[in-house]
Amino acid sequence: MTTSLSPIASAFGGSAANESPLPSWKEGATKQSIVNFVRGVTTAGDPRFVKREERIAVFDNDGTLWSENPFYFQLAFVLDRMKVLALQHPEWKDNLLYSAVLRDDLKAVTGAGERGLLELAMITHAGMTTEEFSKIVEDWITHARHPKFNRPYTEVIFQPMLELLGYLRANGFKTFIVSGGGVEFMRVWAEKVYGIPPEQVIGSSIVTKFEMREGVPVLTRLPQLNFMDDNVGKPVAINMHIGRRPIAAFGNSDGDLQMLQWTAGGSGSRFALLVHHTDAVREYAYEGTSMGKLEVALTEAAARGWTVVDMKSDWNRIFPFESAK
Amino acid sequence: MTTSLSPIASAFGGSAANESPLPSWKEGATKQSIVNFVRGVTTAGDPRFVKREERIAVFDNDGTLWSENPFYFQLAFVLDRMKVLALQHPEWKDNLLYSAVLRDDLKAVTGAGERGLLELAMITHAGMTTEEFSKIVEDWITHARHPKFNRPYTEVIFQPMLELLGYLRANGFKTFIVSGGGVEFMRVWAEKVYGIPPEQVIGSSIVTKFEMREGVPVLTRLPQLNFMDDNVGKPVAINMHIGRRPIAAFGNSDGDLQMLQWTAGGSGSRFALLVHHTDAVREYAYEGTSMGKLEVALTEAAARGWTVVDMKSDWNRIFPFESAK
Repeated sequence: MTTSLSPIASAFGGSAANESPLPSWKEGATKQSIVNFVRGVTTAGDPRFVKREERIAVFDNDGTLWSENPFYFQLAFVLDRMKVLALQHPEWKDNLLYSAVLRDDLKAVTGAGERGLLELAMITHAGMTTEEFSKIVEDWITHARHPKFNRPYTEVIFQPMLELLGYLRANGFKTFIVSGGGVEFMRVWAEKVYGIPPEQVIGSSIVTKFEMREGVPVLTRLPQLNFMDDNVGKPVAINMHIGRRPIAAFGNSDGDLQMLQWTAGGSGSRFALLVHHTDAVREYAYEGTSMGKLEVALTEAAARGWTVVDMKSDWNRIFPFESAK
Repeated sequence: MTTSLSPIASAFGGSAANESPLPSWKEGATKQSIVNFVRGVTTAGDPRFVKREERIAVFDNDGTLWSENPFYFQLAFVLDRMKVLALQHPEWKDNLLYSAVLRDDLKAVTGAGERGLLELAMITHAGMTTEEFSKIVEDWITHARHPKFNRPYTEVIFQPMLELLGYLRANGFKTFIVSGGGVEFMRVWAEKVYGIPPEQVIGSSIVTKFEMREGVPVLTRLPQLNFMDDNVGKPVAINMHIGRRPIAAFGNSDGDLQMLQWTAGGSGSRFALLVHHTDAVREYAYEGTSMGKLEVALTEAAARGWTVVDMKSDWNRIFPFESAK
């Protein structure tokens, strides 16, 4: 993965703390709102100043740090994994849902609803140790390719957000992922791709069990949901894992609303941002499709003065592999 | 709390990274095992070298970082809190367990077993927002006094372990608490007392619920256990919160056994240590009492070559307020 990640890594180290930050963000109100916030909380004596240890920033992942189209990348993992496992399960051809997966009938798969997807997640994410699972994910993420861009999923990430992560960290922020995605799925690659270490990745999880196997300690992954890190779950998870309220939050859907409310609802300097997918040419435009519901959060953003990124007009570059407009 | 904590804070900043570390540890095999481990993992080119980001150290709290006698300090909080709440609950005098608490009948209280203690914990830890609870704990920890030493509980902490925390951090370690104690109880004071920030405190928890109250986001604490961070729960919690296996673990009871097994069971350099309470004069000697069961872990320590601290002979100073022997 080193080769494929090198352009991404360069996004972090490219510039000094406050020297022309955020090159992929066009000049304008959106970029200015970010820079103003960061200047305020880092300037000693400024009434907006925030102590370094309180500078916690939380980021949704799907649709905020990387793309979530044509469907959640983790679903691609689930479907690919089902095909591998099917080799040992000839009986799956008689199961409506499983056979739909095997013949790439996405409509039938998504038609099975949340319960169907959860069933597929359990089959593909449980029944092995945590270390075995990490290896499976690492192998998949190295070899799988995004269907539209024909690149590793770890390159279908948003260059402006990489710059933002680096900019915040250069200004003393600790950056966390708070995602509905599986925590042990993301931790395998989040440090290399985003510079976010495993202990700063928060996500959904299944139950694990500690046991000694012939004198060797293992954690076994069980087919049982432990925590769903979405909607009202996000502030709960933030409190559980971080234990202090973030001062900045970044999301892109109604599933991030409560995280933004929780972040913005504290005292002192606060920043909340929504990424609005508006670029049908370079990425995807959600409006008029069933993708990434954002109505409630957009309304609240307008009412509360949160920043909304219009991807089409605010970003002069979307992916690391793409040159600037 | 600033005044009472100043002697403690000085334990961290006193000496440079490798210059006469651990002054409260007597010279000998125990101290040497710690220093050897740290030198190995921090010396580039040494086969024992460990990358900085993998230098994760986990510490039990009760009996490892602070005393746990004459009973868990958090139980003192529970009992004190019950007395405050009783003013609004005259009917408690008719409840066997509650009235035992109110007349300081500790024997009856502990006789109620785990279920009774859990009931008291729920009454005292739930029914308010997370922010309200933090304020209650902060007020209590500032004013409560240890019955034997007549000092704040946050001073009844082990000076050698403070030095160890500082020594590890000076050598690039990230230090975490992994305790059976309540996570939101510890986070209030752990940063000031141990230099461990909230996001590196892992503990037991109750369920919290996100809600908007007249436009204000709150997390409400519900009287329902979420996670018990003890025994087999500790490796599970470590994996959930940290997402990588620690290379060093410190405990003092059989409840820490699985955390030590999980830590020691990884590849490369590993360090596991047990604090054995053997000093009846300066602190407490557990042997022959019902306190802090350690039989299984001590046996495993002998079999696997883990380090065991004999408090009486290995530490020339136990508490920050005490002068060296």
